[in-house]
Amino acid sequence: MHLTTMSKVKVGAFSISLDGFGAGPRQDINNPLGVRGLELHNWFFETAVFKKIHGQAADMEKTGGTEGFDFHKNDNDIAAQAFENVGAWILGRNMFGPVRGSWDASPENAEWKGWWDDNPPYHTPVFVLTHHARAPLAMEGGTTFYFVTDGVHSALQKAKAASGNKDVRIGGGVSTIRQFLAAGLIDEMHLAMSPVLLGEGEHLFHGMNLHDLGFTSVRTVAGEGATHVFLKKG
Amino acid sequence: MHLTTMSKVKVGAFSISLDGFGAGPRQDINNPLGVRGLELHNWFFETAVFKKIHGQAADMEKTGGTEGFDFHKNDNDIAAQAFENVGAWILGRNMFGPVRGSWDASPENAEWKGWWDDNPPYHTPVFVLTHHARAPLAMEGGTTFYFVTDGVHSALQKAKAASGNKDVRIGGGVSTIRQFLAAGLIDEMHLAMSPVLLGEGEHLFHGMNLHDLGFTSVRTVAGEGATHVFLKKG
Repeated sequence: MHLTTMSKVKVGAFSISLDGFGAGPRQDINNPLGVRGLELHNWFFETAVFKKIHGQAADMEKTGGTEGFDFHKNDNDIAAQAFENVGAWILGRNMFGPVRGSWDASPENAEWKGWWDDNPPYHTPVFVLTHHARAPLAMEGGTTFYFVTDGVHSALQKAKAASGNKDVRIGGGVSTIRQFLAAGLIDEMHLAMSPVLLGEGEHLFHGMNLHDLGFTSVRTVAGEGATHVFLKKG
Repeated sequence: MHLTTMSKVKVGAFSISLDGFGAGPRQDINNPLGVRGLELHNWFFETAVFKKIHGQAADMEKTGGTEGFDFHKNDNDIAAQAFENVGAWILGRNMFGPVRGSWDASPENAEWKGWWDDNPPYHTPVFVLTHHARAPLAMEGGTTFYFVTDGVHSALQKAKAASGNKDVRIGGGVSTIRQFLAAGLIDEMHLAMSPVLLGEGEHLFHGMNLHDLGFTSVRTVAGEGATHVFLKKG
C-alpha cells in the first residue's frame, strides 16, 4: 500500500449552484441532471475540454473541433486539470443512467450503456455503484464500466487497485459524493460554483459539517463562467 | 408612494461561508457573530472602508487611518458601494447586541448601546427588530436606533418613511434576512462568499427557494478576499 500513498481521492470540476445544489430535482431521461440542472454546467460548455469531448462523438464534423472556438481560458485550464492524473472513476448509478431496478428488468435496462456515446469521456476503468450486479461493459477509448454492488469502500478499493499510482476521481452525483464524504474517504474537492440559483434539487452539503470532516478552502479561482473553489483535507 | 418607487430594499456585503452559513453557532458577547463567524469577514478587514469605520473609534491614532495601508481594491470598491445611497437600516436584535429579554431587565440590558462605539457606522436611522419596546437611542454621527416591536412589515414601512428616496439596507443577521426574504420584501442581495467552511451555524438559504422567490444571479466579481455575487429579483 505504501506505493500508492501519493494517489488521491478527489472530486473535480463538480458544478454546484450558488445556493448549493449539485443537481436539479426530478431526474429523468430528458433531464439527466434534474430540472434546470444543465444550467450548472454552462461554464463547462464554453471550454475546449468540453468541445474536445463532444468532438469525439459521432457529430465531430458538425462541431468542427475547437478551432476558431473562442473558449473561456480560465475555466478551460481548470477543467483540463480536473482530468489530469486520473486513473479510475467512481460514479453513482444515476450518473450512469436513468434506468432503475435490475439490469435485466427490461430491454431498455439491458441495453443502457451510459449517458454518453460509444466512446465515453473517461478512458479509464469506471466503477458504478449499484444494487444490481452486471457484467463489465467495455466501451471504446479505454473506458470500461464495472458494476459494484457492495458499497463505497469496496468501490474505492477496486478503483485504487485499478488506478495504479494515479488518483481516483469521484465523478458524482451528489448522493455518491455525500456518501464518500461521510465515510471520510475524499481528500480534495474542486467545486465550480455557477452563477445560478436552483432553489431546489440535490444539495451537496446540507447536514454535513465540512469543517469537522477536516476540510479547509485552499484556493479560489475566478473563471469566466464559474468561480472555482478548492477544498482540501488536513 | 410613487415618489419612493425607485428606492430599493437591499442586502449589501453580507458575508457567507462557502457552505452557506452567515454566522457561526453559539453567539455571545465574546462571539458576536457566533463561533468562527468573524472569519467570514476577513475580506472586509482588508478594506479601507473598514479601516475608516475603525478609525472613527477611540483608537484612531493607534490605527493611523488608511494611509500606507495596502488594502484590497476590488473588495474595497464593492464594500463602499454597499454603503452608497442607504437612507435607513434594519437590524435584528442579535445584530444589535447579545443581551436578551426586556431592556430594563438588568443594568447591562439598559446600558447596551450596540456592538459599536458611540459613533456607529450607520449614520442613518436604524430600525432594530425586538419583542421589547425601548425609547429611541440617538448616537453620535447621525445614527439613531429605533426599536420596532410589531414585525418586519412595520419595520420596513418605518424604514422607508425615514429613508426618503434612498434605499433601505437589511443589515442582518441571518434570521432577519430570512424573514424579509420569506415575506418577499427584498429586491437585491450582494453576498460576499468567503473562502471559509464553517460547517455549522446559521444557514442563510436552507429551506428557502430563491428561484421561486424570483431571484437570479446577475453579476459575480472576484475580490481579493471574497467572491461577490449579486442577486436580483425579477
